[in-house]
Amino acid sequence: MGYFRKNIEQAEGYTPGLQPHRAEVTKLNTNENPYPPSPAVLEVLSQITSEQLRRYPDPNADEFRQAAARINGVEPGCIMCGNGGDELLKIALQAFCDNKRPVSFAVPTYTLYAVLAKLNNCKAIEVAFDKEFNLPAKLSATPAALTIVCNPNAPTGSIVSREEMVCLADEIKGVLLVDEAYVDFAQDNCTELIKDFKNVLIIRSMSKGYGLAGIRFGYAIAQPSLIAGLMKVKDSYNVNTVSIAAAAAAIKDQKYFRRNIEKTKKERERLTEQLRQLGFTVPKSHANFVLAENSGYKAAEIYDKLLQRDILVRFFPVPGLENKLRITIGTSRQNDILLDNLKEILPH
Amino acid sequence: MGYFRKNIEQAEGYTPGLQPHRAEVTKLNTNENPYPPSPAVLEVLSQITSEQLRRYPDPNADEFRQAAARINGVEPGCIMCGNGGDELLKIALQAFCDNKRPVSFAVPTYTLYAVLAKLNNCKAIEVAFDKEFNLPAKLSATPAALTIVCNPNAPTGSIVSREEMVCLADEIKGVLLVDEAYVDFAQDNCTELIKDFKNVLIIRSMSKGYGLAGIRFGYAIAQPSLIAGLMKVKDSYNVNTVSIAAAAAAIKDQKYFRRNIEKTKKERERLTEQLRQLGFTVPKSHANFVLAENSGYKAAEIYDKLLQRDILVRFFPVPGLENKLRITIGTSRQNDILLDNLKEILPH
Repeated sequence: MGYFRKNIEQAEGYTPGLQPHRAEVTKLNTNENPYPPSPAVLEVLSQITSEQLRRYPDPNADEFRQAAARINGVEPGCIMCGNGGDELLKIALQAFCDNKRPVSFAVPTYTLYAVLAKLNNCKAIEVAFDKEFNLPAKLSATPAALTIVCNPNAPTGSIVSREEMVCLADEIKGVLLVDEAYVDFAQDNCTELIKDFKNVLIIRSMSKGYGLAGIRFGYAIAQPSLIAGLMKVKDSYNVNTVSIAAAAAAIKDQKYFRRNIEKTKKERERLTEQLRQLGFTVPKSHANFVLAENSGYKAAEIYDKLLQRDILVRFFPVPGLENKLRITIGTSRQNDILLDNLKEILPH
Repeated sequence: MGYFRKNIEQAEGYTPGLQPHRAEVTKLNTNENPYPPSPAVLEVLSQITSEQLRRYPDPNADEFRQAAARINGVEPGCIMCGNGGDELLKIALQAFCDNKRPVSFAVPTYTLYAVLAKLNNCKAIEVAFDKEFNLPAKLSATPAALTIVCNPNAPTGSIVSREEMVCLADEIKGVLLVDEAYVDFAQDNCTELIKDFKNVLIIRSMSKGYGLAGIRFGYAIAQPSLIAGLMKVKDSYNVNTVSIAAAAAAIKDQKYFRRNIEKTKKERERLTEQLRQLGFTVPKSHANFVLAENSGYKAAEIYDKLLQRDILVRFFPVPGLENKLRITIGTSRQNDILLDNLKEILPH
């Protein structure tokens, strides 16, 4: 018998995107917000006291829950906080799935889902999207205890309508987890579903729309019965005092948040248009990145050439994505640097 | 089929100690350090930039790993960070245990171990300590994939010698996890064991000795092969930028740390002596709390009376602890308040 469980020995773990610290890098690879978080966040950090550091945090992070509840039009009891959406995904897998209770999701999608299934020793039922990334009908017919839809989807940027999600929630027997990490950049979200469905769990992130990837903060929205079960699985003091204060300050500053979102949406339209002019196929994106393909060139080659020029984008060598690049929407200046370099790299 | 796994439905979750926010409470219930963290921590927090908040953290928390490695005389590859010791315990259970791979530990001990076993659907083999809290011989003979020894033990304050731990590591087939959350207040630790044993995993906390319960930071020490397996189980960005900076600043300030530890040890001896004079039985403690029993009075009753006077201690209504109180070592002033009130509460 080895020290580790067999499924852990065989697991590969998740590989995050490169995180270089050199300032000169144009970093369009991990979907960080190109703009800083609300100034209220630094203000709050400067007011943290030794006494707050010395004491255990509020186990339920009520300051954040109350703010997030108000903004989402739900009760605080419908909210649970985590160290990023990733911790909440991990908790969901542990709560709902095991070797007899599979998870299902449409692919290609966020590769962490398959990694978590492996770590949890549960079967992952992967159903392929069609070419237009429509929700596969088969997804509602699996025996999954947990069905995950990343919406908007990463790395495709595509979105499933609220109406389709209602049908899915209604048809499946298990839990529907809607991973809304990128929903701040879309026109609609699925919060309303939790009013009618006790099997719907929505996950949000403060890393993308709110520019707070560094503090690792996310939250779940669901009916209190589902939240209560998930609360048993989380560590009692899972999120810390400083992150709670920072996340609460950011979510309360909706004016600043909305202004940044609009800037990114505008740049997304511009970048999409410009990439198309360079010969790329770019599906309409509802997130803060685009998925671009140029039939004349290998994605891996473009990736390498950009890397040599200190421009980082993301390349996933997996089925369906072999010739595509995922490019985070940067500032206007960053997007120009990318476009100018692509013009030089791609022969005419 | 319910939404949740059966073991999760049946689990109770962990109940943390009360966390009141009123300043007038004498809080001796959750083993927080009574002294603030190193001033270097607030200094570092004041220097956090928007750019650091906007970007994902360093996945490996190398700044902290390097500092902790130097202080513990090991290589950085022997260190892994987590959101408190609790997250590292959770990761260990997920890595080593399942329904065919039990966990074992001596009781009474930190009640989270049994909670995590339940959440992980693995059998918990509980072996009782004797009256003097010596390591039970039976612990080395279980079929456990993971054997946990809390050392110093909570809530007893007792310690198992390094020599005994060497024997245990040698005798068992699985992994030996030494939970050293309270080791900063003891004379010795088990770091040396990782040089000879590839099955030893040590867990440390920044919450107690370093006064940083609010930032949720802990770390594991083990041979790189064990660390590499555990790294696959953790979220890729599990600890955040602000906590990494704060924890690194605190661990680098060893002078401040040692001075606070000495103060607490001195108060521990004084409190032990004074409680004994009040008729309590108080075993020698190697942690920042004492376990006190007064055969003339019910612990639950003393607990309630202290609570009415805004003095919080911990009472665990479980076998072996029904008539004992766990009391955190406070400042000299806090300990005096406790003692003065006990004198009033206990009839003469």
